[in-house]
Amino acid sequence: MTKFAVVLSGCGYMDGAEVQEAVLTLLHLDKRGIDYQCFAPNIEQWHVVNHLTGEPAGNERRNVLVESARIVRGDIMDLADAKAAEFDALIVPGGYGVAKNLSDLALSGEECQLNPDFLAFAQAFKAARKPIGLACISPALSVRIFGMDVECTIGCDKDTARVIELMGGRHMHCAVNEIHVDVINKLVTTPAYMYDAGIADVSEGLEKMVEAVESLL
Amino acid sequence: MTKFAVVLSGCGYMDGAEVQEAVLTLLHLDKRGIDYQCFAPNIEQWHVVNHLTGEPAGNERRNVLVESARIVRGDIMDLADAKAAEFDALIVPGGYGVAKNLSDLALSGEECQLNPDFLAFAQAFKAARKPIGLACISPALSVRIFGMDVECTIGCDKDTARVIELMGGRHMHCAVNEIHVDVINKLVTTPAYMYDAGIADVSEGLEKMVEAVESLL
Repeated sequence: MTKFAVVLSGCGYMDGAEVQEAVLTLLHLDKRGIDYQCFAPNIEQWHVVNHLTGEPAGNERRNVLVESARIVRGDIMDLADAKAAEFDALIVPGGYGVAKNLSDLALSGEECQLNPDFLAFAQAFKAARKPIGLACISPALSVRIFGMDVECTIGCDKDTARVIELMGGRHMHCAVNEIHVDVINKLVTTPAYMYDAGIADVSEGLEKMVEAVESLL
Repeated sequence: MTKFAVVLSGCGYMDGAEVQEAVLTLLHLDKRGIDYQCFAPNIEQWHVVNHLTGEPAGNERRNVLVESARIVRGDIMDLADAKAAEFDALIVPGGYGVAKNLSDLALSGEECQLNPDFLAFAQAFKAARKPIGLACISPALSVRIFGMDVECTIGCDKDTARVIELMGGRHMHCAVNEIHVDVINKLVTTPAYMYDAGIADVSEGLEKMVEAVESLL
């Protein structure tokens, strides 16, 4: 049976994984009969944001793996134990957790570094020529995974597109309900909530991403 | 434009709203062109559960409204300010938050009481003959909202079905991807994650619930 790995980065788009993108990704996998296992790094979140006010929540501390577990009813494993050989493809939904917990993109922009376990896991898929799907802000990490000239999209956000170009990637404009496929790198990207969009449009883009990743197996 | 109210009870099925059910409900509303506004009570959670271990998280305190905001990108309002007159229908996804934050069902069983703001809001829909959709464990609150002989389903869980019967309700068996409609009360219920089911089956039940609620407008 085809099995995908899904990497989450917390629970809530301001300090973790974008909850709706994560859930919709799992929906589209299950609808296509694709099995999945979710992972998250067992590390402290960069910070905690009150999602009602948008303000950082003082000195509160939360763990990325523990919070990610809320999205998937506890069925999640430590990213440090993830083995790419057990999976056919990798998918990473968005949310600031990608830029704060899976990397320091939010802090360092084009100088960003990736969480070592995440980088090793993603590069193992690349090395094995297994496809990867990245949604929302996570395509901004494409260059660190694939190297120069990788093609990806985060929609039409000029600042983020410029960061990708500064790193050496090639940003492609894309509508919220569409995808970009870098066939050479077997990388599929979709903008999702990089747009101020409705959930049905976001879902459509994620569905096309899952479909395209499967077609690249 | 048709507009539904959606009441959340936190973020995570062990101490709040079932995240996947909440997201899938919003997806099916948006796909049908139905506008929505989410609400949650501005109260402290009954407790906080570590969703990785399943154990209560010591003395940690979280707010139901603030945590619910994680699911809906901050677009949520205090349930105390909700006015039923502004909406055509009400939907409540499941999760233990329904039994711990919207009521004390988890503690008191058939003797349970509902959060006063939630009870008043739900009963205003009933009084106005506006339909209500309840998923997962939330149908167990049906008798408190509608009174004796209301028909509902929580799937096939005998203990919870017995609690409903003890309160004076009529429990109907139902598959995860199906619904029960009490036409007299304009109440639609679906079991969702009361079953150990896959997300696509849960989504199908929720989609039918949204569809049936709309048909009762």
